[in-house]
Amino acid sequence: MTRTVLESATKTVVIGFDEPFCVIGERINPTGRKKLAAELEMGDFSTVEKDALEQVVCGATVLDINSGAVFSNKMAEDPRYADNNFVEPPLMEQLVKTVQAITDVPLCIDSSVPGALEAGLQAANGRPLLNSVTGEEERLELVLPLVKKYNVPVVAISNDDTGISQDPDVRFAVAKKIVERAADFGIPAHDIVVDPLVMPIGAMATAGHQVFALVRRLRDELGVNTTCGASNISFGLPNRHGINGAFLPMSIGAGMTSAIMNPVRSQEMEAIRAANLLMNHDPNGGEWIRLAKVLEAMKDGATFAEASTAASASSSGRRGGRRGRG
Amino acid sequence: MTRTVLESATKTVVIGFDEPFCVIGERINPTGRKKLAAELEMGDFSTVEKDALEQVVCGATVLDINSGAVFSNKMAEDPRYADNNFVEPPLMEQLVKTVQAITDVPLCIDSSVPGALEAGLQAANGRPLLNSVTGEEERLELVLPLVKKYNVPVVAISNDDTGISQDPDVRFAVAKKIVERAADFGIPAHDIVVDPLVMPIGAMATAGHQVFALVRRLRDELGVNTTCGASNISFGLPNRHGINGAFLPMSIGAGMTSAIMNPVRSQEMEAIRAANLLMNHDPNGGEWIRLAKVLEAMKDGATFAEASTAASASSSGRRGGRRGRG
Repeated sequence: MTRTVLESATKTVVIGFDEPFCVIGERINPTGRKKLAAELEMGDFSTVEKDALEQVVCGATVLDINSGAVFSNKMAEDPRYADNNFVEPPLMEQLVKTVQAITDVPLCIDSSVPGALEAGLQAANGRPLLNSVTGEEERLELVLPLVKKYNVPVVAISNDDTGISQDPDVRFAVAKKIVERAADFGIPAHDIVVDPLVMPIGAMATAGHQVFALVRRLRDELGVNTTCGASNISFGLPNRHGINGAFLPMSIGAGMTSAIMNPVRSQEMEAIRAANLLMNHDPNGGEWIRLAKVLEAMKDGATFAEASTAASASSSGRRGGRRGRG
Repeated sequence: MTRTVLESATKTVVIGFDEPFCVIGERINPTGRKKLAAELEMGDFSTVEKDALEQVVCGATVLDINSGAVFSNKMAEDPRYADNNFVEPPLMEQLVKTVQAITDVPLCIDSSVPGALEAGLQAANGRPLLNSVTGEEERLELVLPLVKKYNVPVVAISNDDTGISQDPDVRFAVAKKIVERAADFGIPAHDIVVDPLVMPIGAMATAGHQVFALVRRLRDELGVNTTCGASNISFGLPNRHGINGAFLPMSIGAGMTSAIMNPVRSQEMEAIRAANLLMNHDPNGGEWIRLAKVLEAMKDGATFAEASTAASASSSGRRGGRRGRG
């Protein structure tokens, strides 16, 4: 049975076919969040702290830490800041340390810059997930040695030097190549979490079908765990949360075992908790019943994060505070 | 490719692997609806009319008509009313005629009383669905001749004389027996819509798994369409609509092609419309975009039925009225 084991200093999270769906919180990512990037440029980590706590209390069991910031003001003063190989490694270290100081979930170290990946691996407690390797030759040769050196699992995105294929058979072949190449480095398949790449259904009508079929093949033929950027599926369409809220249970039914997503949205988290229950991955429905109370509390106007925080605080004296266990 | 064809006087609905999920509205059923039963006893069909129109405007493409009323007052005056073989046939005829007078969707004739089934078949326009046969010997011998005589499709419920098995392999074997027995009558498999029986997940933790696996087998091995009483899955649990809203997409992903359900609930219909889109059964997302507008209108406080009715009326002069096409 495929088990991908992640660890923080104190917690273990297993991604696996017989485990509750693993929610990897995506919010700590300055890409496309100008305000957050500007804060980070000024050394202000308050939004990062808020996002970390909120995501955990809403149900993320792993937090993605992406250091892909562009520091426009510093760049104007010092040309070295135009190079992300210069910007990201120290920023990644700060982000990891900031988040680890206030939460205890395992992290997902996310960068396109190898130096930032290594800085994150050095700063992270336990056994983080590395995000990501692709089928591109240069990337394979840069990232797989880090995976081996630090003995961590890695997200494998199924594109290669030819780009992202619209043909799911090609994407499967790329995933297979990465798994085989990893084996050459002594990295076992259970430490590869494949992202089969989710296309927007608004641009490609077969995008849902493709993912469900690919996930089943990846599981049956390669025995690997899977993840995805779940919200891609609904890009450009109205009522996106409704599409995501059906896509996630359908993906889980097909065998998907994790997603990188925004856990602060109740509609998606409700769908995942219900899918866990229906997959018999929620013993006695405990998590479902807890969520039902949070959703009930939202009827008075609280946000999902607020209601989740209140429920968490009231369920245990140790939980829900700034240094709580979430 | 399996296609189960239903017809009203003017409309054709196909249940099939390559079709949008078929929503069979369950509301016209006096079982457990005391107020409705009392109205019917007094010859008042206003709730039936309201339920018919609302269900169609909310997305039902077939309406189930169940005549299982208990007429307590009449029973006290005339002992013949204690016998449903006496009560149901004329009631079924009235229900069918009432609904056909104001809607034009195909019907599903639903009764445990053979005389009511035949009365419904005689009164119904087009090609209704018969609900239901089981694996019980007496039921097979009573219902299959009607299916053959009227050349209609039939719902086959996978219990038999030993009751409802908790073992999905036994339920599959019962379904197979019904399909084989139907073949002896000259009834093709594509006119059998199997209900694999949905157990409450609160009572049986494997209930979801069982349905998904059974639906896949029924489709792959018997080539039949499937249906279910969808809301059974969440019986006894809090926030039932959330469970139903994940169960339906997961069932659709597994191959389920219809459900007998309440279409007046937006959460379930949103899940089904999203699943249709993700299965590539909603060309250009037209139905999804239409639903998104209805959900948007609900933010002002309208019910799903009200917002659906308004959207339907505004989209076409011919639609949404009492004699509209829904």
